[in-house]
Amino acid sequence: MNNFNYYTPTKVVFGKNTVDQVGELVKKFGGTKVLIHYGGQSAVKSGLIDRVAASLDAFGIPHVELGGVVPNPHLEKVYEGLELCKSQGVDFLLPVGGGSVIDSAKAIAYGLAEPEYDVWELYEHTRVPKASIPLGAVLTIAAAGSEMSDSSVITNEKTGQKRGCNSDLCRAKFAIMDPELTVTLPDYQSMSGCVDIMMHTMERYFTQGEVPDITDAIAEGLLKTVMKHAKILHNDPTNYNSRAEVMWASSISHNGLTGCGHQGSDWASHRLEHELGGMFDVTHGAGLAAVWPSWARYVYKDCLDRFVKFAVDVMGVNPGDDKEQIALKGISAIEDFFREIDMPINMKELGIEPTEDQIKELALGCEAAVGGQVGSAKVLKRADMEAIYRMALPTV
Amino acid sequence: MNNFNYYTPTKVVFGKNTVDQVGELVKKFGGTKVLIHYGGQSAVKSGLIDRVAASLDAFGIPHVELGGVVPNPHLEKVYEGLELCKSQGVDFLLPVGGGSVIDSAKAIAYGLAEPEYDVWELYEHTRVPKASIPLGAVLTIAAAGSEMSDSSVITNEKTGQKRGCNSDLCRAKFAIMDPELTVTLPDYQSMSGCVDIMMHTMERYFTQGEVPDITDAIAEGLLKTVMKHAKILHNDPTNYNSRAEVMWASSISHNGLTGCGHQGSDWASHRLEHELGGMFDVTHGAGLAAVWPSWARYVYKDCLDRFVKFAVDVMGVNPGDDKEQIALKGISAIEDFFREIDMPINMKELGIEPTEDQIKELALGCEAAVGGQVGSAKVLKRADMEAIYRMALPTV
Repeated sequence: MNNFNYYTPTKVVFGKNTVDQVGELVKKFGGTKVLIHYGGQSAVKSGLIDRVAASLDAFGIPHVELGGVVPNPHLEKVYEGLELCKSQGVDFLLPVGGGSVIDSAKAIAYGLAEPEYDVWELYEHTRVPKASIPLGAVLTIAAAGSEMSDSSVITNEKTGQKRGCNSDLCRAKFAIMDPELTVTLPDYQSMSGCVDIMMHTMERYFTQGEVPDITDAIAEGLLKTVMKHAKILHNDPTNYNSRAEVMWASSISHNGLTGCGHQGSDWASHRLEHELGGMFDVTHGAGLAAVWPSWARYVYKDCLDRFVKFAVDVMGVNPGDDKEQIALKGISAIEDFFREIDMPINMKELGIEPTEDQIKELALGCEAAVGGQVGSAKVLKRADMEAIYRMALPTV
Repeated sequence: MNNFNYYTPTKVVFGKNTVDQVGELVKKFGGTKVLIHYGGQSAVKSGLIDRVAASLDAFGIPHVELGGVVPNPHLEKVYEGLELCKSQGVDFLLPVGGGSVIDSAKAIAYGLAEPEYDVWELYEHTRVPKASIPLGAVLTIAAAGSEMSDSSVITNEKTGQKRGCNSDLCRAKFAIMDPELTVTLPDYQSMSGCVDIMMHTMERYFTQGEVPDITDAIAEGLLKTVMKHAKILHNDPTNYNSRAEVMWASSISHNGLTGCGHQGSDWASHRLEHELGGMFDVTHGAGLAAVWPSWARYVYKDCLDRFVKFAVDVMGVNPGDDKEQIALKGISAIEDFFREIDMPINMKELGIEPTEDQIKELALGCEAAVGGQVGSAKVLKRADMEAIYRMALPTV
C-alpha cells in the first residue's frame, strides 16, 4: 500500500429538513457576516433562499446575497462576489447549490483571504493558496462532490479556459445535504450528476500499480450503488431513498476515500472534458460520458488488469480467458448503462461536433492545463489527446 | 435513508516513516507543550518514543512523558496524567500506542479542559463534556479505531467498572498510522485487533430497519478485507500490505462511515464484553469473539433479514429458502473464522468461567452501564444479558 494523507474535516449534516440547521452551523463555525451565493432563480422561487435566510436571521447573523452563478462558473462572477464581500465585510461564504456554486464560493473565499493578489493566478497555477475564508455548503445537486472535496474549478469566460485549484484550505466547514432539495432537478442534470459521481471514483480506480483491497471494495460498492439508483431515478425522480444514496455517494466519491493508498489518480477524462466545457459549455457529467468510452478504448491495453477487474467486479462481465475481450465488454457495459439513462457516449450525442482545428485547439488547451501530460492508466500527451477526441467523434 | 451526521476531522497521515512527521503536525495544530503518553516499555525499547521525541525536538516543542497505560486503561493513570500535565503546563496530548493509550489520553484531555470537575463523571454519564484539550495520535495497534473515533473507554480499577464516553470534542486532530509499527505485535494481540475492527462494523450492521446500499457495500467490503488479511497475518505477521489493510480498516470501521443513514447501532456485544473486561481484564477483541456467537444465536430471529444478508454477502453462505438455516450458517462461518485465527468462541476458550453469581453481577453491571437496556437487532434487558452470558459458557 502506498503512503497517503486523508483529510475530510467537513461536518456532514445529512437528511430531511437539515437545511434549517444552517444558522446554527454558521454560528458554530464563527461566521458573523454571510454571503449567500447561488445560481439560477429556481433557488429563490422554490423558497430555499428565504429558508436559508430565515435560519441565519434566527441566529442573528446578517447576510447579503449574490445569485447568477452559471454551470462552468465564470471568473467574472467570482470578481463580482469579491467586490461585494469586501464592501460588505463578509467573513463566511454560504454557497446554496451544486458544484458550480460551491466552486465559485471557494474562489471568492480564496480571493478574500489574499486580497492583494488576483485569484485567477491560483487556477493558472502560478501561485499556491496560503489562506481561505471559511465556507459551509447547502447542497442542491448531487454531482461534483465539491461539498467535501479540496477542489474548485472555474472558467475564465474571456479566454475559454476551464481550470482547477486543489487545496485543503477550501474544504467546507460543513455540508448540509438534504436529498429532498434535489428531487425537482431535471433528469438530464440528475443523470449527468450520477456520471460525474461515478467518474470521480473511476478516475481513481484506473491506475497503475496495486490498489488496496479496502479501497477497491469501497470504490466498487459505490459504483454499483450509483448505477442502481441512477436507473431508479431515471424512472422515478422523486424517489427519496435513491436521491439520498446518490447524494451521499457524491461526497464519498470525491473526498479522497476511493483513492486511499493507490499509486495516483488518472484524471485524463476530466481534463479532456474540461476543455469541452470551456469551449462548448457542455454539462460536465454528460461531457464525461461522451469522452470516457473513447478514453477507455484508447488506454485499456496499458492498464489491462484494472479494466478486467472493473469489467468483472463492477459491470458483472463473466470472467474468461481473454483479458482484452473482458476489458472491452466492461467498456461496452458502461456504454449500455449510459444509454439506459439517456447519457451520450460520444461528442456527437453530446450535441457538439468540433472541427479538426477545434480538436487541435482542445488538445493544445488540455496539454497546457496539465503541464504537458496527464494520466495514470496511461500517460497521455497532446497527440494522444487529439486521438481520443477524434475517436469520440464518430464518422457515421 | 435515515438522517445522520458524519464528522471525521482527523487528518490521517498513513504509511511508512510517517511517525517522523509528528513534530510538524503538533506544531501545525498548535501544541506548545506535549505529553507523550504510552503503554509498556516496548515503545521505549524499540526506540519509538525516542523517535517521537526527536521529531518534537526538531520543531522546538518541549515534552514530558508518561508511560504505563495498561489494556483496559485505568482511571488512576488518568488522574496521574492530569496532575503531571497541570504541573507541566501541557496543552497537547500525544498518545503513542493503541486504543487503550489513546483513550487514556482522551480522558486526560477532557480533564485538563474542565479541571474543576472529576473526569470520571463523564464516564458515569452524570455530566456531558463541554471542552477538550487537543490531541494527536501515533497508532501502534490496529484495533480500537480510537484514532478517528469519538469514543473513549476507561476502567475504574477500584470498582471494576469499564465505561465509555462519546463526544466529537475528543476526536484526534491528526493520526499518524505507520503499519510498520504493528509488525512486532504478538499474534494474539493482532488477531484480537482484527476481531475488534470487525465488531465495530458488525455492531452497526445488525440493526432494525433499512440500511443504505452504500453503507452496506462499505461495511461488507471492510469485513471481507479484514478477514482476508487477518488470515494472512496469522501466518505471515510481517506482511506490510496486510498490516496496512487492517490498520486503515481499523479507522474506517469506527469513524462512523459504516453506520451512515441506518436506524441505530446495536453495541450489545461491546457492552457485554466491557463487563468481562472490567471483571476479568480480558483482551477486548478476544472477549468480543467469545461473546458474539452466543449473542448472535440469542438475537438472530429478531433481525433475521440482516443475519441472512450477512451470511450470504459477507460469509459466502449459499442463499436458499430457509432463512433461519442461512442465518445460523453465517454465525457458524464466523466461528470457523475465529477458530482459524485462534480466537475463542466462548468464555471458556477465553480462559474465564464466571460463576452463576458472577454472571448475575456481570448482567447487573451491564444493565447499569446502559441505563436498563441495549441493542438494535434485539433490545436486551438484564435477563437477556444473563442468558447470553450463560450461553457463552458451554457446559461440556
